[in-house]
Amino acid sequence: MTTLGVQRAKELFAAARVARLATVDGDGRPHLVPIVFVVTGETILSAVDAKPKRTQALRRLANVEVNPAASLLVDHYDDADWSALYWVRADGRGRVLAPGHPQALEAVRLLIRKYPQHAEQPPAGPVLAIDVESWSGWSYS
Amino acid sequence: MTTLGVQRAKELFAAARVARLATVDGDGRPHLVPIVFVVTGETILSAVDAKPKRTQALRRLANVEVNPAASLLVDHYDDADWSALYWVRADGRGRVLAPGHPQALEAVRLLIRKYPQHAEQPPAGPVLAIDVESWSGWSYS
Repeated sequence: MTTLGVQRAKELFAAARVARLATVDGDGRPHLVPIVFVVTGETILSAVDAKPKRTQALRRLANVEVNPAASLLVDHYDDADWSALYWVRADGRGRVLAPGHPQALEAVRLLIRKYPQHAEQPPAGPVLAIDVESWSGWSYS
Repeated sequence: MTTLGVQRAKELFAAARVARLATVDGDGRPHLVPIVFVVTGETILSAVDAKPKRTQALRRLANVEVNPAASLLVDHYDDADWSALYWVRADGRGRVLAPGHPQALEAVRLLIRKYPQHAEQPPAGPVLAIDVESWSGWSYS
Protein backbone atom coordinates (compact mmCIF):
# COMPACT_ATOMS: atom_id res chain seq x y z
CA MET A 1 0.00 0.00 0.00
CA THR A 2 1.43 3.34 -1.09
CA THR A 3 0.79 6.70 0.47
CA LEU A 4 -0.56 9.31 -1.95
CA GLY A 5 0.68 12.87 -1.95
CA VAL A 6 -1.62 15.52 -0.52
CA GLN A 7 -2.27 17.11 -3.92
CA ARG A 8 -3.18 13.78 -5.54
CA ALA A 9 -5.33 12.89 -2.53
CA LYS A 10 -7.25 16.17 -2.85
CA GLU A 11 -7.75 15.68 -6.59
CA LEU A 12 -9.12 12.16 -6.15
CA PHE A 13 -11.36 13.30 -3.31
CA ALA A 14 -12.78 16.28 -5.21
CA ALA A 15 -13.47 14.16 -8.30
CA ALA A 16 -15.41 11.48 -6.40
CA ARG A 17 -19.21 11.46 -6.68
CA VAL A 18 -20.00 10.22 -3.20
CA ALA A 19 -18.23 10.41 0.15
CA ARG A 20 -18.99 9.02 3.56
CA LEU A 21 -19.18 11.39 6.50
CA ALA A 22 -18.41 10.33 10.07
CA THR A 23 -19.38 12.53 12.98
CA VAL A 24 -19.50 11.78 16.69
CA ASP A 25 -22.32 12.40 19.16
CA GLY A 26 -22.04 13.67 22.73
CA ASP A 27 -21.68 10.11 24.02
CA GLY A 28 -18.75 9.30 21.72
CA ARG A 29 -20.79 7.21 19.29
CA PRO A 30 -19.90 7.53 15.59
CA HIS A 31 -22.56 8.37 12.99
CA LEU A 32 -22.00 7.53 9.35
CA VAL A 33 -23.85 8.69 6.21
CA PRO A 34 -23.12 8.89 2.50
CA ILE A 35 -23.13 12.42 1.08
CA VAL A 36 -22.81 14.23 -2.21
CA PHE A 37 -20.42 17.13 -1.84
CA VAL A 38 -18.15 19.69 -3.42
CA VAL A 39 -14.63 20.75 -2.48
CA THR A 40 -13.70 24.41 -2.58
CA GLY A 41 -10.24 25.27 -1.31
CA GLU A 42 -9.78 23.41 1.96
CA THR A 43 -13.49 23.10 2.66
CA ILE A 44 -15.90 20.28 1.86
CA LEU A 45 -19.49 21.42 1.46
CA SER A 46 -22.64 19.32 1.55
CA ALA A 47 -26.26 20.35 1.82
CA VAL A 48 -29.28 18.99 3.57
CA ASP A 49 -32.37 18.22 1.51
CA ALA A 50 -35.47 20.31 1.40
CA LYS A 51 -36.90 18.40 4.37
CA PRO A 52 -34.69 19.74 7.16
CA LYS A 53 -36.67 17.85 9.82
CA ARG A 54 -35.31 14.51 8.63
CA THR A 55 -33.74 12.72 11.57
CA GLN A 56 -30.65 11.63 9.61
CA ALA A 57 -29.84 15.14 8.54
CA LEU A 58 -30.45 16.53 11.99
CA ARG A 59 -28.13 14.00 13.58
CA ARG A 60 -25.04 14.94 11.59
CA LEU A 61 -25.74 18.63 12.20
CA ALA A 62 -26.41 18.15 15.91
CA ASN A 63 -23.20 16.11 16.21
CA VAL A 64 -20.92 18.77 14.76
CA GLU A 65 -22.53 21.38 17.01
CA VAL A 66 -21.53 19.25 20.01
CA ASN A 67 -18.25 17.88 18.59
CA PRO A 68 -16.93 19.48 15.40
CA ALA A 69 -14.46 16.62 14.63
CA ALA A 70 -15.43 15.02 11.33
CA SER A 71 -13.88 12.52 8.96
CA LEU A 72 -14.79 11.93 5.30
CA LEU A 73 -13.79 9.07 3.07
CA VAL A 74 -13.89 8.35 -0.64
CA ASP A 75 -12.73 5.04 -1.95
CA HIS A 76 -12.46 3.09 -5.15
CA TYR A 77 -13.09 -0.64 -4.94
CA ASP A 78 -12.66 -3.06 -7.84
CA ASP A 79 -13.42 -6.70 -7.20
CA ALA A 80 -11.51 -7.77 -10.30
CA ASP A 81 -8.37 -5.81 -9.53
CA TRP A 82 -7.38 -5.14 -5.95
CA SER A 83 -4.27 -3.39 -7.24
CA ALA A 84 -6.58 -0.60 -8.47
CA LEU A 85 -7.90 0.13 -4.97
CA TYR A 86 -7.43 3.55 -3.47
CA TRP A 87 -8.97 5.68 -0.79
CA VAL A 88 -8.69 9.21 0.46
CA ARG A 89 -9.61 10.55 3.83
CA ALA A 90 -10.21 14.14 4.85
CA ASP A 91 -10.14 14.95 8.55
CA GLY A 92 -11.32 18.28 9.82
CA ARG A 93 -13.88 20.30 11.71
CA GLY A 94 -17.51 20.92 10.82
CA ARG A 95 -19.62 24.08 10.84
CA VAL A 96 -23.34 24.36 10.16
CA LEU A 97 -24.38 27.20 7.84
CA ALA A 98 -27.93 28.51 7.80
CA PRO A 99 -29.66 28.33 4.37
CA GLY A 100 -29.19 32.04 3.63
CA HIS A 101 -25.47 32.21 4.51
CA PRO A 102 -23.30 33.35 1.56
CA GLN A 103 -21.19 30.19 1.74
CA ALA A 104 -24.38 28.10 1.86
CA LEU A 105 -25.64 29.77 -1.32
CA GLU A 106 -22.24 29.15 -2.94
CA ALA A 107 -22.45 25.51 -1.85
CA VAL A 108 -25.81 25.06 -3.56
CA ARG A 109 -24.49 26.66 -6.76
CA LEU A 110 -21.44 24.38 -6.76
CA LEU A 111 -23.53 21.31 -5.94
CA ILE A 112 -25.89 21.97 -8.85
CA ARG A 113 -22.90 22.37 -11.16
CA LYS A 114 -21.34 19.08 -10.03
CA TYR A 115 -24.67 17.24 -9.78
CA PRO A 116 -27.15 18.41 -12.45
CA GLN A 117 -29.58 15.99 -10.74
CA HIS A 118 -29.86 18.65 -8.03
CA ALA A 119 -31.12 21.35 -10.39
CA GLU A 120 -34.74 20.21 -10.31
CA GLN A 121 -34.98 20.47 -6.55
CA PRO A 122 -31.96 22.28 -5.11
CA PRO A 123 -31.24 21.44 -1.47
CA ALA A 124 -32.94 24.08 0.64
CA GLY A 125 -31.77 23.15 4.11
CA PRO A 126 -28.66 24.02 6.11
CA VAL A 127 -25.21 23.40 4.67
CA LEU A 128 -22.49 21.46 6.44
CA ALA A 129 -19.02 22.86 5.87
CA ILE A 130 -16.02 20.74 6.88
CA ASP A 131 -12.76 22.66 7.11
CA VAL A 132 -10.14 20.05 6.28
CA GLU A 133 -7.07 19.89 8.50
CA SER A 134 -5.47 16.87 6.81
CA TRP A 135 -5.83 14.95 3.55
CA SER A 136 -4.55 11.37 3.52
CA GLY A 137 -4.57 8.91 0.65
CA TRP A 138 -3.50 5.35 -0.05
CA SER A 139 -3.24 3.34 -3.19
CA TYR A 140 -2.39 -0.31 -3.81
CA SER A 141 -0.53 0.34 -7.01
CA MET B 1 -36.48 8.29 0.99
CA THR B 2 -37.87 4.99 2.22
CA THR B 3 -36.79 3.07 5.28
CA LEU B 4 -35.73 -0.51 4.55
CA GLY B 5 -36.77 -3.39 6.78
CA VAL B 6 -34.09 -4.87 9.02
CA GLN B 7 -33.98 -8.14 7.08
CA ARG B 8 -33.54 -6.36 3.74
CA ALA B 9 -30.97 -4.03 5.26
CA LYS B 10 -28.94 -7.03 6.53
CA GLU B 11 -29.13 -8.76 3.14
CA LEU B 12 -27.91 -5.69 1.28
CA PHE B 13 -25.14 -5.14 3.81
CA ALA B 14 -23.91 -8.76 3.71
CA ALA B 15 -23.90 -8.79 -0.10
CA ALA B 16 -21.81 -5.62 -0.42
CA ARG B 17 -18.13 -5.98 -1.33
CA VAL B 18 -16.81 -3.03 0.64
CA ALA B 19 -17.94 -1.19 3.76
CA ARG B 20 -16.66 1.85 5.58
CA LEU B 21 -15.84 1.55 9.26
CA ALA B 22 -16.03 4.47 11.67
CA THR B 23 -14.45 4.25 15.10
CA VAL B 24 -13.71 6.98 17.65
CA ASP B 25 -10.47 7.68 19.49
CA GLY B 26 -10.07 8.69 23.11
CA ASP B 27 -10.38 12.37 22.22
CA GLY B 28 -13.71 11.90 20.42
CA ARG B 29 -12.23 12.11 16.92
CA PRO B 30 -13.74 9.83 14.29
CA HIS B 31 -11.55 7.52 12.20
CA LEU B 32 -12.78 6.17 8.88
CA VAL B 33 -11.44 3.35 6.68
CA PRO B 34 -12.81 1.12 3.93
CA ILE B 35 -12.86 -2.59 4.78
CA VAL B 36 -13.65 -5.93 3.20
CA PHE B 37 -15.76 -7.98 5.55
CA VAL B 38 -18.14 -10.85 6.14
CA VAL B 39 -21.37 -10.99 8.12
CA THR B 40 -22.10 -14.01 10.26
CA GLY B 41 -25.24 -13.82 12.38
CA GLU B 42 -25.21 -10.40 14.05
CA THR B 43 -21.45 -9.96 13.79
CA ILE B 44 -19.38 -8.22 11.12
CA LEU B 45 -15.85 -9.58 10.82
CA SER B 46 -12.87 -7.97 9.15
CA ALA B 47 -9.21 -8.87 9.32
CA VAL B 48 -6.02 -6.93 9.43
CA ASP B 49 -3.39 -7.64 6.80
CA ALA B 50 -0.23 -9.58 7.35
CA LYS B 51 1.56 -6.39 8.41
CA PRO B 52 -0.05 -5.76 11.79
CA LYS B 53 2.28 -2.84 12.51
CA ARG B 54 0.55 -0.70 9.91
CA THR B 55 -0.60 2.51 11.54
CA GLN B 56 -4.01 2.47 9.88
CA ALA B 57 -4.81 -0.99 11.15
CA LEU B 58 -3.52 -0.21 14.61
CA ARG B 59 -5.67 2.88 14.87
CA ARG B 60 -8.99 1.17 14.35
CA LEU B 61 -7.99 -1.57 16.80
CA ALA B 62 -6.71 0.89 19.40
CA ASN B 63 -9.91 2.92 19.04
CA VAL B 64 -12.28 0.04 19.79
CA GLU B 65 -10.17 -0.92 22.80
CA VAL B 66 -10.73 2.59 24.18
CA ASN B 67 -14.27 3.10 22.84
CA PRO B 68 -16.04 0.05 21.40
CA ALA B 69 -18.77 2.08 19.62
CA ALA B 70 -18.48 1.49 15.87
CA SER B 71 -20.55 2.30 12.81
CA LEU B 72 -20.33 0.66 9.37
CA LEU B 73 -21.87 1.81 6.13
CA VAL B 74 -22.46 0.29 2.73
CA ASP B 75 -24.02 2.35 -0.01
CA HIS B 76 -24.95 2.15 -3.63
CA TYR B 77 -24.51 5.29 -5.70
CA ASP B 78 -25.57 5.66 -9.33
CA ASP B 79 -24.92 8.98 -11.01
CA ALA B 80 -27.39 8.21 -13.77
CA ASP B 81 -30.24 7.19 -11.48
CA TRP B 82 -30.56 8.72 -8.04
CA SER B 83 -33.74 6.72 -7.53
CA ALA B 84 -31.53 3.60 -7.36
CA LEU B 85 -29.57 4.92 -4.38
CA TYR B 86 -29.58 2.98 -1.13
CA TRP B 87 -27.46 2.68 1.95
CA VAL B 88 -27.33 0.50 5.00
CA ARG B 89 -25.77 1.25 8.33
CA ALA B 90 -24.79 -1.17 11.07
CA ASP B 91 -24.18 0.27 14.52
CA GLY B 92 -22.60 -1.82 17.22
CA ARG B 93 -19.65 -2.56 19.43
CA GLY B 94 -16.21 -3.78 18.43
CA ARG B 95 -13.96 -6.48 19.85
CA VAL B 96 -10.40 -7.30 18.82
CA LEU B 97 -9.63 -11.00 18.37
CA ALA B 98 -6.06 -12.31 18.44
CA PRO B 99 -4.99 -14.19 15.28
CA GLY B 100 -5.36 -17.64 16.84
CA HIS B 101 -8.85 -17.08 18.33
CA PRO B 102 -11.45 -19.57 16.96
CA GLN B 103 -13.67 -16.73 15.69
CA ALA B 104 -10.62 -15.13 14.05
CA LEU B 105 -9.85 -18.37 12.21
CA GLU B 106 -13.51 -18.59 11.14
CA ALA B 107 -13.32 -15.00 9.95
CA VAL B 108 -10.33 -15.75 7.71
CA ARG B 109 -12.11 -18.82 6.27
CA LEU B 110 -15.23 -16.78 5.52
CA LEU B 111 -13.20 -13.89 4.07
CA ILE B 112 -11.36 -16.22 1.68
CA ARG B 113 -14.69 -17.70 0.58
CA LYS B 114 -16.19 -14.25 -0.09
CA TYR B 115 -12.98 -12.78 -1.53
CA PRO B 116 -10.96 -15.37 -3.46
CA GLN B 117 -8.41 -12.55 -3.85
CA HIS B 118 -7.53 -13.23 -0.21
CA ALA B 119 -6.53 -16.86 -0.82
CA GLU B 120 -3.03 -16.07 -2.03
CA GLN B 121 -2.12 -14.17 1.10
CA PRO B 122 -4.73 -14.69 3.82
CA PRO B 123 -4.84 -11.89 6.40
CA ALA B 124 -2.66 -12.99 9.30
CA GLY B 125 -3.23 -10.18 11.76
CA PRO B 126 -5.89 -9.59 14.43
CA VAL B 127 -9.58 -9.71 13.53
CA LEU B 128 -12.03 -6.96 14.32
CA ALA B 129 -15.48 -8.25 15.26
CA ILE B 130 -18.36 -5.77 15.41
CA ASP B 131 -21.42 -7.04 17.26
CA VAL B 132 -24.28 -5.22 15.58
CA GLU B 133 -26.92 -3.66 17.79
CA SER B 134 -28.96 -2.04 15.03
CA TRP B 135 -29.28 -2.32 11.25
CA SER B 136 -30.75 0.68 9.42
CA GLY B 137 -31.37 1.06 5.74
CA TRP B 138 -32.73 3.66 3.35
CA SER B 139 -33.65 3.57 -0.29
CA TYR B 140 -34.80 6.26 -2.69
CA SER B 141 -37.20 4.02 -4.57
